Amino acid sequence: MATVQPPLQGDDTRSQVARDADHPRDSLVASFGLDKPLKLDAGVSLSPFQIAYKTYGTLNAARSNAVLVCHALTGDQHVANQHPVTKKAGWWETMVGPGKAIDTERYFVISANVIGACMGSTGPASTNPETGKPWGLSFPVITIRDMVRAQAMLLDHLGIDSLFAVAGGSMGGMQVLQWAASYPERVFAALPIACATLHSPQNIAFHEVGRQAIMADPEWRGGRYLLEGTDPRRGLAVARMGAHITYLSDAALHRKFGRKFQDRENPTFSFDADFEVESYLRHQGIAFVERFDANSYLYLTRAMDYFDLAADYSGVLSNGFKGTPTRFCVVSFTSDWLFPTVESRAIVHALNASGARVSFAEIVTDKGHDAFLLDEPELFAIVRGFLDGAGRARGLQEKKE
Amino acid sequence: MATVQPPLQGDDTRSQVARDADHPRDSLVASFGLDKPLKLDAGVSLSPFQIAYKTYGTLNAARSNAVLVCHALTGDQHVANQHPVTKKAGWWETMVGPGKAIDTERYFVISANVIGACMGSTGPASTNPETGKPWGLSFPVITIRDMVRAQAMLLDHLGIDSLFAVAGGSMGGMQVLQWAASYPERVFAALPIACATLHSPQNIAFHEVGRQAIMADPEWRGGRYLLEGTDPRRGLAVARMGAHITYLSDAALHRKFGRKFQDRENPTFSFDADFEVESYLRHQGIAFVERFDANSYLYLTRAMDYFDLAADYSGVLSNGFKGTPTRFCVVSFTSDWLFPTVESRAIVHALNASGARVSFAEIVTDKGHDAFLLDEPELFAIVRGFLDGAGRARGLQEKKE
Repeated sequence: MATVQPPLQGDDTRSQVARDADHPRDSLVASFGLDKPLKLDAGVSLSPFQIAYKTYGTLNAARSNAVLVCHALTGDQHVANQHPVTKKAGWWETMVGPGKAIDTERYFVISANVIGACMGSTGPASTNPETGKPWGLSFPVITIRDMVRAQAMLLDHLGIDSLFAVAGGSMGGMQVLQWAASYPERVFAALPIACATLHSPQNIAFHEVGRQAIMADPEWRGGRYLLEGTDPRRGLAVARMGAHITYLSDAALHRKFGRKFQDRENPTFSFDADFEVESYLRHQGIAFVERFDANSYLYLTRAMDYFDLAADYSGVLSNGFKGTPTRFCVVSFTSDWLFPTVESRAIVHALNASGARVSFAEIVTDKGHDAFLLDEPELFAIVRGFLDGAGRARGLQEKKE
Repeated sequence: MATVQPPLQGDDTRSQVARDADHPRDSLVASFGLDKPLKLDAGVSLSPFQIAYKTYGTLNAARSNAVLVCHALTGDQHVANQHPVTKKAGWWETMVGPGKAIDTERYFVISANVIGACMGSTGPASTNPETGKPWGLSFPVITIRDMVRAQAMLLDHLGIDSLFAVAGGSMGGMQVLQWAASYPERVFAALPIACATLHSPQNIAFHEVGRQAIMADPEWRGGRYLLEGTDPRRGLAVARMGAHITYLSDAALHRKFGRKFQDRENPTFSFDADFEVESYLRHQGIAFVERFDANSYLYLTRAMDYFDLAADYSGVLSNGFKGTPTRFCVVSFTSDWLFPTVESRAIVHALNASGARVSFAEIVTDKGHDAFLLDEPELFAIVRGFLDGAGRARGLQEKKE
């Protein structure tokens, strides 16, 4: 007869998530008062607001070696240090650090939590100072451009006129492209990885399923769970599980799990996690809800869905980069079906049409979209080489050996 | 400021679903008493049980023109007649009917609701005669082979020793392959379409997300919603939405929806269904819960996950077809990423190795997995041609013009 595992469960962590949203651990915070509103694409302003960020390395005297690293949907500012909530390594420690491709002995690396997220930059889990209560769904819907506008204000705050480079994958890559389009004079070199200038209908569809999973959870309470003391962790975990499949590839799943059973030799004829891949996915869902805010998930997926850079330039993408002084390195992965290479090629074609300096690499891997986060020596070599060349052009001092 | 649509909702339809599970409308029912138990792979027997089915056309005197049509995960016996619940056309009216590729003026077509489903064959929504209550999760977990065993018992009941053909797509195709392996002498011709001999880890992963969405719905109540008068429609709708994406293709979504807004010119900066593709998906979810049982969804996805035909033959697929008298026509679709062509080729290679007669067609289409259900003239021509040839070999009378 069929038996069933208990559904996804865990301790209530919403209050912790809310605390980090206002008072992020192990982070710097830049606060912008009523005199410095963030103008949003939605037609309203966010004010006051704050940005949580980290820096690594040292800004040189010429202030010319700053690299902004932009994070993906569920990333944050903890690029190259132990994460204060999960206690795991930073999400891009493979790429960023002393002697790494983005070398913190050479560059001054800045990483900021995006607006709308939940690790200390103002978002739906933050306290609305006007009401003293969490914003929830009264937080304005934000866009990738809004995220980038906020980052530009952070750079002003830090006294950095021009970035040596801006780099990121996935939603981070969207920010890189938006940076180059919105502030070409402030970006010397741009590294958009595993991304696109618009979100495809299939990607919008997957995001919508995730949002519906969250909103279908009765504990979501119309987004008021922080106020009402409920926890939409089940819906959020389902959203994460579904999304996680899209970050991998069929080949990687075959290689990693195949049809192997989890700690058993034969099927149990039940709804237990018989297969390793089921067990792995459940773990992904459960781990995620410990560190992420359900409403933030709604807002950030929405920002990605709305992203359509060409639309801002009458549908002609190359107009967004016309006469750009920025040099670009575009990277895609063969097994990335969320942002397939054809979409990176479209970026390259537009950049060529606009006369930009651009190099392009498609990396052969079976690791899927997540390859940009993983140990991909070819990716590291490409990023290192591109930054070395750009550094020479920028007149950055060579690293002392 | 962000607004949000009301979550998926509708009238309570669980009691109607339960009624159809025991007393299917517009269907024939074959009942198997305690003397005719269905032996299941789980090691238990199901007894008594019933099978709901439909027939179209006339069985010839030699009883040699019967074609069994096997349905997919969410299909049923209503292949070529108006569906009694949705009032829509039968799910394969494009393929089955007078003058169609599976010609009901020529063949006697049988379609049976699978065991575990909810349209009149015994499944978790059916009443357990021992308790007088719905089976729920006390229903045994079933396999594709169990479904086929039950269908073989239905054929015995109908006095049909040998099928002229057995045909189906997706989970229906899995049944076709199982039929040919389990009862080679009873299958003259086999048409497995858009399927595989095992469910890939990625497909298992997508199914697991759907199951978790259902089980995360508090109204699911450990599978006892029919008893407790609750309705896990939100979880079931989310499961359907996620699965529906996998039935289409990136290209088809681009063609059908692109990034078009639904009844508006600009984004609303909200969580409304701004994009047509979102609206479409929500509709798919809402429509599905009107006709389907959440527990059945768990059982049938599980049966597909467990399917691994080669495993029954020491991992050597060709051993499953050794010396088979059956002739095969295997069909795949170029844009089907749920059951990609490579998996159909594996079937063909195994059949070749076993010395079987096999033809293979890969149809070029952007319609994805669902192409087998849609208006695909090339598919119809292939099926018609294959059945014509097999009919001549079988000595079936040509159709009178």
